[in-house]
Amino acid sequence: MAEGERAEELLDLVETNDLTGIRLWLAEHRPYEIADELSRMAEGQATIPFRLLDKDRELEVFEELDPAQQQSILLGLRDHAFQELLEEMDPDDRARLLGEVPAKIATRALAGLSPSERRMTAALLGYPENSVGRYMTPETVILHRDLTVSRALEVVRAKGADVENIYTLPVVSDGRRMVGTVALGDLVISEADRLLKDVVDVFAPRVRAYESVESAARLMQEANLVALSVVDSEERFVGMLTFDDALEVIEAADTEDMARQSGASPVSDHYVSVSVLRLVGARAVWLMVLLVAATLTVNVMQAYEATLEQVTALALFVPMLIGTGGNVGAQSATAIVRALAVGEVRVRDLPRVLWKESRVGFMLGLTLAVLALGIGSFLVGTTIASVVACTVIAICTWAAVIGSAMPLLANKVGVDPAVVSSPMVATLVDATGLIIYFSIARMILGI
Amino acid sequence: MAEGERAEELLDLVETNDLTGIRLWLAEHRPYEIADELSRMAEGQATIPFRLLDKDRELEVFEELDPAQQQSILLGLRDHAFQELLEEMDPDDRARLLGEVPAKIATRALAGLSPSERRMTAALLGYPENSVGRYMTPETVILHRDLTVSRALEVVRAKGADVENIYTLPVVSDGRRMVGTVALGDLVISEADRLLKDVVDVFAPRVRAYESVESAARLMQEANLVALSVVDSEERFVGMLTFDDALEVIEAADTEDMARQSGASPVSDHYVSVSVLRLVGARAVWLMVLLVAATLTVNVMQAYEATLEQVTALALFVPMLIGTGGNVGAQSATAIVRALAVGEVRVRDLPRVLWKESRVGFMLGLTLAVLALGIGSFLVGTTIASVVACTVIAICTWAAVIGSAMPLLANKVGVDPAVVSSPMVATLVDATGLIIYFSIARMILGI
Repeated sequence: MAEGERAEELLDLVETNDLTGIRLWLAEHRPYEIADELSRMAEGQATIPFRLLDKDRELEVFEELDPAQQQSILLGLRDHAFQELLEEMDPDDRARLLGEVPAKIATRALAGLSPSERRMTAALLGYPENSVGRYMTPETVILHRDLTVSRALEVVRAKGADVENIYTLPVVSDGRRMVGTVALGDLVISEADRLLKDVVDVFAPRVRAYESVESAARLMQEANLVALSVVDSEERFVGMLTFDDALEVIEAADTEDMARQSGASPVSDHYVSVSVLRLVGARAVWLMVLLVAATLTVNVMQAYEATLEQVTALALFVPMLIGTGGNVGAQSATAIVRALAVGEVRVRDLPRVLWKESRVGFMLGLTLAVLALGIGSFLVGTTIASVVACTVIAICTWAAVIGSAMPLLANKVGVDPAVVSSPMVATLVDATGLIIYFSIARMILGI
Repeated sequence: MAEGERAEELLDLVETNDLTGIRLWLAEHRPYEIADELSRMAEGQATIPFRLLDKDRELEVFEELDPAQQQSILLGLRDHAFQELLEEMDPDDRARLLGEVPAKIATRALAGLSPSERRMTAALLGYPENSVGRYMTPETVILHRDLTVSRALEVVRAKGADVENIYTLPVVSDGRRMVGTVALGDLVISEADRLLKDVVDVFAPRVRAYESVESAARLMQEANLVALSVVDSEERFVGMLTFDDALEVIEAADTEDMARQSGASPVSDHYVSVSVLRLVGARAVWLMVLLVAATLTVNVMQAYEATLEQVTALALFVPMLIGTGGNVGAQSATAIVRALAVGEVRVRDLPRVLWKESRVGFMLGLTLAVLALGIGSFLVGTTIASVVACTVIAICTWAAVIGSAMPLLANKVGVDPAVVSSPMVATLVDATGLIIYFSIARMILGI
């Protein structure tokens, strides 16, 4: 926490415009710590400390920032400094940044780049957003399969200084056709006169540049890869996806899933630097949809108004019952959404999952019914309590089935299962749960 | 998805006991794909395909499995095969496995190890669960700062073949005191006669073995590290935390957070292989607590029973209002829990967060109130509708404050903020929201 203590100071220093203090603070912190603090600042505030950075650390800090933050810093720089920074960025980071800025700025920025950097960036920008192509780095040391180990190491020595990743090196045959990869560590350890084709790992996974970057990142996680080869449709090597980009993709995807789970659109910026209006915008739409959907519950209550007037005590348990149904549904939905995201459950598991969840729901219902019977009997007598207890069993089973079926069905029709949020499941279970409740009440009470 | 298609077959092959088919399937798949399929099997089922694996792939597949799955496979093996497998595992994986099996098995297993492996494992087992010490690998190539680059490469060549990670190498002074790290890539590129002390990155972050492995993993993610040095309290090098273990830790932590967010205890195994009873166990406790807490809503409803009898129409909107409050609270809680987990928000941000969320809640309330006024006027007339609309504004503001304050307060008193689940926030907001509703109703209706 000592880090947190001192980190907070940068904002104070910026707010009091203490330039000497800022310089000192910057000198004492690591690039990613500096980037972390800059991310927490409001628009415009980050430019001052950024300009005070040493030239050689500027780039390192800049590359750690989100594209939105990068953009706001770039706009605060003079044209010359702007172009210089852009020229030095890794091509994949640059492509992602330019993909998000207004087209006019992007065109001007591209025009200012050196020809080779421009070519690389334009190529990456040709791939769709969220594809592997946008995130891979084309700069790497490519080795031909006919090289010897010692010759390959010479190539690495000659070309390796400028590239982002040389942990895992692509090995190709003629025409850049992918053969496999070799780890730098294996090159170092192997005998000098062996041929690369005898050392290369031909089973190393590879992905196409047009594939989803999230699935590629999850593959790297499953297969414990530092870097993943990317090929075009003719199996020619085009770039490497590195673990730091994969980690970022996974973190962003998980954050998005969590936001969606609570019925909010994901906001990609740091929480602290996001404006109130953007937060409202991200959350309002689903809330409005859910409120309109909740009109159903009003309709159901109206339909049973006569029953309610006869036995007012029934109204007392409405919040508890729909709350419990919502909770059980949310648990099932969350479990299935996550299991789908990390690949533990597949769409074809639907029948198996439903059978499992309905049993889980029924047993949870039985457990809770005992509790509800006790509480109900104490508060309003055994008759109403037994209505409540029976309803609990039915609602829990129903909620578990609905909660687990919805994400799987969403996935089946090609919708991201994470949009099946807990609030959505809860709202659906609320209305149907009330029908179950009043039907059981009428049956048991004979009205 | 073609992978998924064929993957499913292994289970079918195992169920029909088709040994030839299993052998073929295994030969065609990569270790992590095989591990993924084994994880989806019920207890005991995985032993058959595992025994059919080639000896040299056995270990690779085994290390990809969860400790629980590893345990069930180990118990299915004969004593000899059991010890052989254990001897070959990485020390950190072995320590994690032995930390979870019954003490009797662990002791017997430890006794069967070779002295050097036993020493390493016992050392790791000495660190607390969930500490960096349990996850780090002690096997690495340690370089002295006075070596030249070429001499260092010779050391890597001599000792590097047996160790898990040689991407990032620790550089130490006398007495194993940590100086910094050097990337293998930098060693390869640097001139042969330079001294390590001129090449070493002395700013490379390091952590203590007793620290939480989750924060260490998040640090690696932030700083884009392939490996993180671990030191003891006297700054002596003791091991390396590698990115694959860090990734696993982060994935598990995120899965746990998501489960907790929905009010369920985390279940560490694959969803498909977990029994119904374990799922019930993981979910029942919180549901019971929440059901008892929901008794509060029954009490509140009882307290206002007279009001309800006078104006039955008020009851119609109870589900909609508490649903909306729960949704707003869940959004805020989820946003803050995630922001805390990835380090975007700190405990000291509490006042700032509350101020922001109360404005967000108020504006969401205003938006939803307009909708509610329309729906209510149409269904039951403007008087009740205006009660509902005013309540929506109040409840949304209140829910956003409660939802954001609870995780921060939990963190402040040292409780994992992720236990502040959406259902918990919803239940709290339900009861208080009803009081708000009936108070406003009495005021406006003059009863």
